[in-house]
Amino acid sequence: MSIEYDEVDHRVSATDDAVHSDWDNSREPIRTVESGDVVEFECRDATNGQIDPDSTVADLADLDVGQVHTLTGPIAMEDAEPGDVLQVDVLDLEHQGWGYTLVLPGELGMGLLPEEFPEPALHVWEFEDDAAHFVDSVASETQREDGSAEGGSVDGIEVPLHPFPGTVGVAPAADGQHDTNPPRPVGGNLDIKQLTAGSTLYLPIAVADALFSIGDCHAAQGDGEVCISAIEAPMSVTCRLEVQPEMGLERPQFETDGPFTPTGRDEPAFGTTGIGDDLSEAARDAVRGMIDHLHEERGLEREQAYVLCSAAVDLKINQIVNAPNWTVSAYLPESIFPEG
Amino acid sequence: MSIEYDEVDHRVSATDDAVHSDWDNSREPIRTVESGDVVEFECRDATNGQIDPDSTVADLADLDVGQVHTLTGPIAMEDAEPGDVLQVDVLDLEHQGWGYTLVLPGELGMGLLPEEFPEPALHVWEFEDDAAHFVDSVASETQREDGSAEGGSVDGIEVPLHPFPGTVGVAPAADGQHDTNPPRPVGGNLDIKQLTAGSTLYLPIAVADALFSIGDCHAAQGDGEVCISAIEAPMSVTCRLEVQPEMGLERPQFETDGPFTPTGRDEPAFGTTGIGDDLSEAARDAVRGMIDHLHEERGLEREQAYVLCSAAVDLKINQIVNAPNWTVSAYLPESIFPEG
Repeated sequence: MSIEYDEVDHRVSATDDAVHSDWDNSREPIRTVESGDVVEFECRDATNGQIDPDSTVADLADLDVGQVHTLTGPIAMEDAEPGDVLQVDVLDLEHQGWGYTLVLPGELGMGLLPEEFPEPALHVWEFEDDAAHFVDSVASETQREDGSAEGGSVDGIEVPLHPFPGTVGVAPAADGQHDTNPPRPVGGNLDIKQLTAGSTLYLPIAVADALFSIGDCHAAQGDGEVCISAIEAPMSVTCRLEVQPEMGLERPQFETDGPFTPTGRDEPAFGTTGIGDDLSEAARDAVRGMIDHLHEERGLEREQAYVLCSAAVDLKINQIVNAPNWTVSAYLPESIFPEG
Repeated sequence: MSIEYDEVDHRVSATDDAVHSDWDNSREPIRTVESGDVVEFECRDATNGQIDPDSTVADLADLDVGQVHTLTGPIAMEDAEPGDVLQVDVLDLEHQGWGYTLVLPGELGMGLLPEEFPEPALHVWEFEDDAAHFVDSVASETQREDGSAEGGSVDGIEVPLHPFPGTVGVAPAADGQHDTNPPRPVGGNLDIKQLTAGSTLYLPIAVADALFSIGDCHAAQGDGEVCISAIEAPMSVTCRLEVQPEMGLERPQFETDGPFTPTGRDEPAFGTTGIGDDLSEAARDAVRGMIDHLHEERGLEREQAYVLCSAAVDLKINQIVNAPNWTVSAYLPESIFPEG
């Protein structure tokens, strides 16, 4: 499904003077648009182009994490005032045929299981027929820091694409430079995978002109994004931006369109659980169980399993009321595997 | 979809000597069955029949919470040993046309928002055409402790039924009596709503004969079960029980069948978010936002909204890696509302 629109009013290229890697309400807007305008944003990948389809895990050693996440913007919204809401209709996303998932312990962030996965890893995906292909090839196998290439039984695994912007937000009220990693009430690195084309996001505006930026596009992601990255990809994103003065909002809200299931259809899933009085530890246990399953039952190497969890496995809070123990589960859509 | 079976080998009635309200590995089994047998369990509602279709909120004052959760069992599995796994194929669930959702601050447990909802509430649902009807009638409106009945704009709201056993488990290794409220690695009050007919649950066996019990059936539930109860209902549950000596398991795992989406189909949803460094508080914020939405946009009373969240709104962990702030969202399936 989709939201209708007639034409693109503005095209914003991701030139060096139109991208930034922190949130700062003193940054000069690159353009001013009217409420209701449709804007097509060219977005670099989250690392600012430091990774390309030929990259290997060795390249991660030189990665400048200060450039993460590279966002396009900011756009000034005419007449927007603090207290207004910015309605963002996600209209279209266009990828370039490839993406990657990385594991990068250290400065960038840990992921959910840093002790079990202390080594960097890089997996490059090829997109074809609306799916990311998890194939064993030189460019796409999971590579380890020691240079060895690990190939597991990943042939035929396809993660259906559901492209969405991982980071979308407006400038925070607090002055100064703010890290792009944590999401905030003004949005930012939300990683809500349901924000595909056809969805609408509402953001509370904190400063005059709103100062909207977008990027960090993901071709697919599991709820939880457990290994620290999704299927990261350079993309263009087309949005309609509309100021809603009357709405009032403390935190982002959204309306999703399909697909809603992990791969866009009802299907059998395999689940693992974590049970305990700490939600984060319960989530870790669920992911540990899923990694064990993918390794033991599906023959994936453990790093490949970790990457696949981040790309295609959903974490859900089953219940948070049965004191003192909560239930968290991880869901693996069975259809990503070839039949038989 | 369903799992095929030829016939029921055992029918277990929920007589007084066949139900219990704690876990205790010294309890005498009510029957011994062979691995592979199909057993139909009659299950009382979670309160042991203290609530019926004519109950009002005033009856909650006398509720004996010591009888929660009333489970049917235990069943001894022939030749089951600690370390084995019990495979539970969920084959069929039959309700009796009604159910209820209660808010009961105090001894029973708090729910996610005890300060916002300090008063008991009871909502009785009627089931028809595979849906629970959230209608304004004497028996079904949300009633408050002071005797006043609050009717909101709930006419036409239908929560599709997806019946499942909320509590399903085997006896724990530790001697003594154990509260049924928290789930444990041997299962119990898991509240995994995807365990509908056609699904399979695997439980680690901790004691000889396994000592399997089941009950606390839910006609529908949102992930999170935020108000402390789901759509609680007396039901019969038919399962195939099979001992798997070779499998080995630390915690429950499961395979789900459809439906997987909140109401069994792809559909638009409305979402609210919680963002912060504490997952529980983030979940609270998401639910607060959803209650505000249901109250302000849909005209529900706040207690009705809280009940509806517990019955039909899904909590999902969107991401748990963007330190220091996580994203938790609550999903409301739009299709539960009448069109227009």
